[in-house]
Amino acid sequence: MAKVKVGVLGATGTVGQRFILQLADHPQFELAALGASSSSTGKSYKDAVAGRWKQVKPIPENVKNVTLVECEPKEFVDCEVVFSGLDSGPASTIEPAFRDANLRVFSNARNYRMDPVCPLVVPLVNPDHFSIIPHQRSTLSPSPSKGFIITNANCSTTGIVVPLKALQDAFGPLDKIMVSTLQAVSGAGYPGVSSFDIHDNVVPYISGEEEKIESETRKILGGINANSTAFEQLDDLAISAHCNRVPVLDGHTECVSVSFKKQPAPSVEEVKEVLRKYTCEAQKLGCHSAPKQVITVHDEPDRPQPRLDRDWQDGAGVNVGRVRKCPVFDIKFVALSNNVMIGAATSSVMNAEIALAKGYLA
Amino acid sequence: MAKVKVGVLGATGTVGQRFILQLADHPQFELAALGASSSSTGKSYKDAVAGRWKQVKPIPENVKNVTLVECEPKEFVDCEVVFSGLDSGPASTIEPAFRDANLRVFSNARNYRMDPVCPLVVPLVNPDHFSIIPHQRSTLSPSPSKGFIITNANCSTTGIVVPLKALQDAFGPLDKIMVSTLQAVSGAGYPGVSSFDIHDNVVPYISGEEEKIESETRKILGGINANSTAFEQLDDLAISAHCNRVPVLDGHTECVSVSFKKQPAPSVEEVKEVLRKYTCEAQKLGCHSAPKQVITVHDEPDRPQPRLDRDWQDGAGVNVGRVRKCPVFDIKFVALSNNVMIGAATSSVMNAEIALAKGYLA
Amino acid sequence: MAKVKVGVLGATGTVGQRFILQLADHPQFELAALGASSSSTGKSYKDAVAGRWKQVKPIPENVKNVTLVECEPKEFVDCEVVFSGLDSGPASTIEPAFRDANLRVFSNARNYRMDPVCPLVVPLVNPDHFSIIPHQRSTLSPSPSKGFIITNANCSTTGIVVPLKALQDAFGPLDKIMVSTLQAVSGAGYPGVSSFDIHDNVVPYISGEEEKIESETRKILGGINANSTAFEQLDDLAISAHCNRVPVLDGHTECVSVSFKKQPAPSVEEVKEVLRKYTCEAQKLGCHSAPKQVITVHDEPDRPQPRLDRDWQDGAGVNVGRVRKCPVFDIKFVALSNNVMIGAATSSVMNAEIALAKGYLA
Amino acid sequence: MAKVKVGVLGATGTVGQRFILQLADHPQFELAALGASSSSTGKSYKDAVAGRWKQVKPIPENVKNVTLVECEPKEFVDCEVVFSGLDSGPASTIEPAFRDANLRVFSNARNYRMDPVCPLVVPLVNPDHFSIIPHQRSTLSPSPSKGFIITNANCSTTGIVVPLKALQDAFGPLDKIMVSTLQAVSGAGYPGVSSFDIHDNVVPYISGEEEKIESETRKILGGINANSTAFEQLDDLAISAHCNRVPVLDGHTECVSVSFKKQPAPSVEEVKEVLRKYTCEAQKLGCHSAPKQVITVHDEPDRPQPRLDRDWQDGAGVNVGRVRKCPVFDIKFVALSNNVMIGAATSSVMNAEIALAKGYLA
Repeated sequence: MAKVKVGVLGATGTVGQRFILQLADHPQFELAALGASSSSTGKSYKDAVAGRWKQVKPIPENVKNVTLVECEPKEFVDCEVVFSGLDSGPASTIEPAFRDANLRVFSNARNYRMDPVCPLVVPLVNPDHFSIIPHQRSTLSPSPSKGFIITNANCSTTGIVVPLKALQDAFGPLDKIMVSTLQAVSGAGYPGVSSFDIHDNVVPYISGEEEKIESETRKILGGINANSTAFEQLDDLAISAHCNRVPVLDGHTECVSVSFKKQPAPSVEEVKEVLRKYTCEAQKLGCHSAPKQVITVHDEPDRPQPRLDRDWQDGAGVNVGRVRKCPVFDIKFVALSNNVMIGAATSSVMNAEIALAKGYLA
Repeated sequence: MAKVKVGVLGATGTVGQRFILQLADHPQFELAALGASSSSTGKSYKDAVAGRWKQVKPIPENVKNVTLVECEPKEFVDCEVVFSGLDSGPASTIEPAFRDANLRVFSNARNYRMDPVCPLVVPLVNPDHFSIIPHQRSTLSPSPSKGFIITNANCSTTGIVVPLKALQDAFGPLDKIMVSTLQAVSGAGYPGVSSFDIHDNVVPYISGEEEKIESETRKILGGINANSTAFEQLDDLAISAHCNRVPVLDGHTECVSVSFKKQPAPSVEEVKEVLRKYTCEAQKLGCHSAPKQVITVHDEPDRPQPRLDRDWQDGAGVNVGRVRKCPVFDIKFVALSNNVMIGAATSSVMNAEIALAKGYLA
Repeated sequence: MAKVKVGVLGATGTVGQRFILQLADHPQFELAALGASSSSTGKSYKDAVAGRWKQVKPIPENVKNVTLVECEPKEFVDCEVVFSGLDSGPASTIEPAFRDANLRVFSNARNYRMDPVCPLVVPLVNPDHFSIIPHQRSTLSPSPSKGFIITNANCSTTGIVVPLKALQDAFGPLDKIMVSTLQAVSGAGYPGVSSFDIHDNVVPYISGEEEKIESETRKILGGINANSTAFEQLDDLAISAHCNRVPVLDGHTECVSVSFKKQPAPSVEEVKEVLRKYTCEAQKLGCHSAPKQVITVHDEPDRPQPRLDRDWQDGAGVNVGRVRKCPVFDIKFVALSNNVMIGAATSSVMNAEIALAKGYLA
Repeated sequence: MAKVKVGVLGATGTVGQRFILQLADHPQFELAALGASSSSTGKSYKDAVAGRWKQVKPIPENVKNVTLVECEPKEFVDCEVVFSGLDSGPASTIEPAFRDANLRVFSNARNYRMDPVCPLVVPLVNPDHFSIIPHQRSTLSPSPSKGFIITNANCSTTGIVVPLKALQDAFGPLDKIMVSTLQAVSGAGYPGVSSFDIHDNVVPYISGEEEKIESETRKILGGINANSTAFEQLDDLAISAHCNRVPVLDGHTECVSVSFKKQPAPSVEEVKEVLRKYTCEAQKLGCHSAPKQVITVHDEPDRPQPRLDRDWQDGAGVNVGRVRKCPVFDIKFVALSNNVMIGAATSSVMNAEIALAKGYLA
């Protein structure tokens, strides 16, 4: 079967580099165009990222000499799909231009996450939100026959909604959530966080991050109405986030306390059982990037830890540990997710795999 | 006026080293004896800590050649007071032996913190708990005429009870507290945390730490009964702690959410005002180690930070920042305290200064 | 073909853990016995390393429940070969006991490295030194028919002798070598280096390390006499090492300046060419663990770097960069090697693969 | 006596911040003008550095509300002296403009360091080079009556020339020097080194740094001719530098091997004695910023270390340890200097103190 031709927007940035590593030998997708800003267009990929390729894996051989093009639809005419690693500035105009040109846009940018007709999808959680796509198209004029925008969540949101979804499915609506994050520097891109700021230090603030967790979680864990025209956000779910940057390269650690509307709340053992048994649609569909185990539950008292657990399953799943009673809410635990994999590029790619399997790319 | 002669128990350990730096030229106390384990006794202090003195300041000249003695009262006959930097193992028998021998013991060990007749005192918060001392003596047989044990709190408890006390004084009883800590490696002593465990990593677990925060806070913020014979712990104050070790040398960062029993809760501005104006008895008594400003409130969006703020006022006060509304509780903020100073040695020394000023060393 | 049964001595330590990961599914070797100290014997491997398994990869499933045995030959009767990850203390008596019991010992300990009848072999450099084995046996009484001890080099020696061997082969004897190392914390095992010592710090001293580099290099780069009974160390090769510990997890960076006896010295381009083209016997023999490229030469001005280059080829080769004229000697460059792979376990395992291919295990 | 009025060029940068901390309550100098780039002029100092003040000490109270001015001489008419923390780009035109306007410029920029009529002065080493100043003025047309430019050395040069000067004074000309540096991130300013580049890493390259060490050392350790019109650089002194960036905040560690022209070379004990006894003119002149001990020689096997020794004497001196025989050259040792203090701002300020004491500011 012919592979689907895909492009990458923002191909030289850190998220773009991750997209390239994931797509260079993908069984279903074929890299057909790489877009960058004007300062890089016309250069080979290799030359454009010289001194800025910060991945442990080398640049794929079949990508090194690809010539970078402008992020304009006319340069991506061979593509059916584009993955966007753009910053929110350029994303605001470029992404809708690609949608209007009938490309399917899988975006890691924040611009359309809270848009009322754009799915905000963590592939391990809510791919059913894709069903709003026909309605998304219908709101546009002219209505694109194939184009749409699907976004994935902020990296720190992704890490917690996976276990929270498992709990909500099993034990009913959540009541209150308190989360404190210890986020890796890679979440800020390159050059991102100055060593001067984070060396031997914690920065207890990440601009806009707490608000993203609080709003995105309510959309992702919410439903969609019967005729797939509107999301049903969980407006009565109280969430409070404390976000911190810590001197860790990759892997967001998040301390979560949660209470349930339905009482009595589940026991620690029931919670662990439910987390361990949680499965997702990407697995059932046989998606290439889906993890074998969605949530890996650790029994050791001091796990998960970013250095030891972030690369498990190539960072496609989520780790949970220290499940225990919370003296204030019902249950507390630690979640650990790979912010550059499932927290970014892996989510976009897995979303596209699901979309392909479900016929949205036809 | 003659200085009070004091000794240090566990003088070669990391807390002991801090005691020595604080006491070497103290205006009211004079170092008269240094106790260590048998492997060090008979050696000069300098020789005993060779390769283990891990302080930025050099060993004080007047301490270098002091001969270390056993941690036995007969070696401390010249002393009125001892500061204990012992681990909990040896502390369990040595500290009461010194009390029985009529020495005043200011302990940094955890053993007697929750003892019903021992004060657990953060000097910036509850020196009024010293009033149980006569009762402490009366419970012993034979009752020492002068000896007693006073403990200071765990370092992560200390950092939060200072602002919480200010809030409780101003706005009435607290209802619920959720705290997540990002604790420095120096809290674990030397050699303490292996670089292999914490380099590029977070360890989301510190043995016993969450329980200490939860129980100690209820004792410290509680009162003492009218005849000073029992503490009135705040048994209905719900506290939940998530404790993490992060790759920071000194300075515990703590993310706190709090709700008040009395509603409506104070505004952010009222909270900041109350924190800024908070004063403590150590200031009124003119104690040598008391900070000028008990709580330094930061208005910058990204402060306090351990590297930048831990040494402010020699680490004798507490820093608070990011005071804001909590979507789940009433108020949330970030507290930053120097775990090796106000979180350990400075607390013990300031407690002794207060005790001296209030006549407990007479 | 039946696999060769092998054992691991010191199986729970950090080098032992690496041996297990490399041997668990090796095509020629089969793990048949795991030895540990008395405190662990009788336990399952999984239980013995609980809280001490510090590898990113999980414990292999087929190893988890293996019962640990004493490091005594009678427990290893099924084995032909043992890999020793023992510390030098126990190695001093255990390793010769296994040799005497007719096992081939591939040791990572330092004890026999400079022994006049023991090969000190970096598999990418001098496997011809294996030819002393018959003589080694002949010096023992009784002479073992099959047993011998082969050692691999210290991790910081390994990183530099590979490029130095290539240069010596191409341009004749080296005259002087100056090397400064920036060594990773994993080189010190677990718990090894305290975070308190290395956090935000450099320790410009590693006990015995400079002497090891200076002596081992002269043995490894030297020859063996015509009847294979003695090593011909390069006594007139002047070497000076400055060894430093830096806050890096894995990967030793080494700055090398070298001069040649034969003048004029080679150009920078000739040196790079020779390094790139260097091949080793392990490659010709088709050894499972041999790298595709022995020395990867980097042209970028700022490579190699430990975080980016240490895992290239699973750490089985060596990286060299910044080849340039030295204003004092002839040539200078930066070498980067993975101290826990080619610097430790991979060297032992590759040595055994070579020994197998060359008939020494028959 | 009236203080000398001084200004700072580049006052908001990291070197400028250091200047301000050192000058805010200096006994001889009074801050009279602060210059910055156009984006900051007109703002109060406090507002201009909001979010960029990265010092542990707070902004001095008497500086907070000073209004920043353009780096033009007309804005500094009250000043006799300016300290330049400018980058080399703006320094190239601004510094000579100030000299021409009759201000004495003490520059930390690299532009004029190798200028044949500009002194390159490490205040602990070669303030005698100031004597070229009349000649410097005479080369200009029109010749300024008071203006001149004095530069201090690159931070990594500074750390080694101090002990090398002591050795040269005592044992005659040096023959060869090999140095490997392990440099702190603060040397690169702010934001400077990305955490992504240096976290868990070493970067074995700093652009231009090796060349600076090699050339600056030959000028600083050289003399000046009899009529003070030309420097006598040590053209036959062979120097080779390997420069590395390491994850340390402050403090450059440098591994030095040195040989002497005069043989036999001094013993280790003679070298240590000479280093310990070395004094400098700034001490004799009673300069405010001069260290009590120019070179602190450590006898412990593992010192100096950046975290423990960089702040000794406020970073105004240099630390040396591990003095030992070099198997290739004569002597080797480790030097440690505070790159932001004696390696930058302290050098400029001490140079100005010396110049004042010697009448060059009259």
